[in-house]
Amino acid sequence: MKLAMVDDRITSCEELDPVHFDRGLYFGDGVYEVLRSYHGKIFALDEHLQRFAASMAAIRITGIDIQVVRERVLRAFQAAGFANAKIYFHVTRGSEPRSHTWKPGLKPNFFLTVSELVDNPQEKARGIAVCTHPDLRWKRCDIKSLNLLPNILAKQAAAEKGCGEAILVDEAGFITEGAGSAVFAIIGKALQTAPLSANILPSITRHFVTKAARNAGLPIEERCLTPQQAAAAEELFLAVTTKDIVPVVRFDDVVIGNGLPGPGTKAITAEFLKFTT
Amino acid sequence: MKLAMVDDRITSCEELDPVHFDRGLYFGDGVYEVLRSYHGKIFALDEHLQRFAASMAAIRITGIDIQVVRERVLRAFQAAGFANAKIYFHVTRGSEPRSHTWKPGLKPNFFLTVSELVDNPQEKARGIAVCTHPDLRWKRCDIKSLNLLPNILAKQAAAEKGCGEAILVDEAGFITEGAGSAVFAIIGKALQTAPLSANILPSITRHFVTKAARNAGLPIEERCLTPQQAAAAEELFLAVTTKDIVPVVRFDDVVIGNGLPGPGTKAITAEFLKFTT
Repeated sequence: MKLAMVDDRITSCEELDPVHFDRGLYFGDGVYEVLRSYHGKIFALDEHLQRFAASMAAIRITGIDIQVVRERVLRAFQAAGFANAKIYFHVTRGSEPRSHTWKPGLKPNFFLTVSELVDNPQEKARGIAVCTHPDLRWKRCDIKSLNLLPNILAKQAAAEKGCGEAILVDEAGFITEGAGSAVFAIIGKALQTAPLSANILPSITRHFVTKAARNAGLPIEERCLTPQQAAAAEELFLAVTTKDIVPVVRFDDVVIGNGLPGPGTKAITAEFLKFTT
Repeated sequence: MKLAMVDDRITSCEELDPVHFDRGLYFGDGVYEVLRSYHGKIFALDEHLQRFAASMAAIRITGIDIQVVRERVLRAFQAAGFANAKIYFHVTRGSEPRSHTWKPGLKPNFFLTVSELVDNPQEKARGIAVCTHPDLRWKRCDIKSLNLLPNILAKQAAAEKGCGEAILVDEAGFITEGAGSAVFAIIGKALQTAPLSANILPSITRHFVTKAARNAGLPIEERCLTPQQAAAAEELFLAVTTKDIVPVVRFDDVVIGNGLPGPGTKAITAEFLKFTT
């Protein structure tokens, strides 16, 4: 008899929630997004949906209408009723008996959570420490997929050193991005960040940060940074949907600037927040 | 109110099976094994359990006693009652609200299936076609983790070209392994395969194949192959737990040898099967 076992309990496969046989669980065969709202309005919904559609296309998940995703996101957001919400959702290729190749026409699985997003003003006021970690990820980090094991291991290692983020460094010695954020430096009064490539996520927050920097009068230079250049930068910050801009005041063991968020970071943050109101 | 949504249905998080919040699903934060039995006896159980313990240690999953895993595998295998069984199991770090860093003391989730393994004698008699695919995987493929998106995309692409396996080629131009198998060539009457490294899985079947080759009188050379060298080999075959040895008779568009499984592959297979009785 074909059977399954969950922890200590033997059961039939039919009795289990189909999510046990989700290709997302077997293979990380799915893609995701994280959205947030400010003051009751979801930020950059179109941009996130567009990126999500691109992620699905990149791993060839079909059969999910992006307008249905939009409707579900809005409906769940309304139902939750948080002014500042964090919305996570993923689509996996579907549930079926484990096989590397997939069955044509398999129905994708959609999953979403909404929770309240609590801002951390102290983090923004004081900045955080970060540390470098080898970038062990696959070669298509432009796809926002559920294969995140190297990210979580890097982030955990950073947390255990008292750092708020791991800064990933590739084999060529360049910073790609954070384990869950984009990395920016202010050097010579210009904003510097890695150019978009297959090695980094096309971050939505990055897009709005560069717009904000232009509005704040800072030129943008898309160029890869080494850890040495980052440690010597006038200012450093991270960009991530759930926290927008997070100042970095320590890089490995080097204090950045005077150890407090700098004027460029503050100016860009002020411009960024104008987009959210 | 914090809530979840599964497909079209809004629900509370508490109502859902905890597997919906499994870090295996969110991040691929888990490790797995696939075992098989021959004639009512599980093959190489100790070796698989030892590798599984190493995979758990490598991603720092604790709180699972390997003897408990052994007992569960044996109990499920007995309950299923297949002489030739395929046993899949994974352990994930556990279920919790999504966060890159994990909660200390989180209880890992164990999941297992047993199904009947049906051999494919035609595949062994005729051999299969394979094709090359870029190796896009992460830098720790020695860990048998649930981050398998590049593997399944490669295998699917191969299947759509009528091939039974994708042969992964790294940026340096060398074959690492198959999307779900180890790759062997017979060149100048010696058996050649890539040396163990962080880029390939320490395949249990590979271990027994090299033993079988020694018993069959073939010297072993651990050296990376290029696709050109593979295409020009006297014989090629794959090794994978569920199928042991699978002859390869076409590599991209090149016919290997006379287009049929060769004498070296047959001799090694005969020696291998002695281990299984």
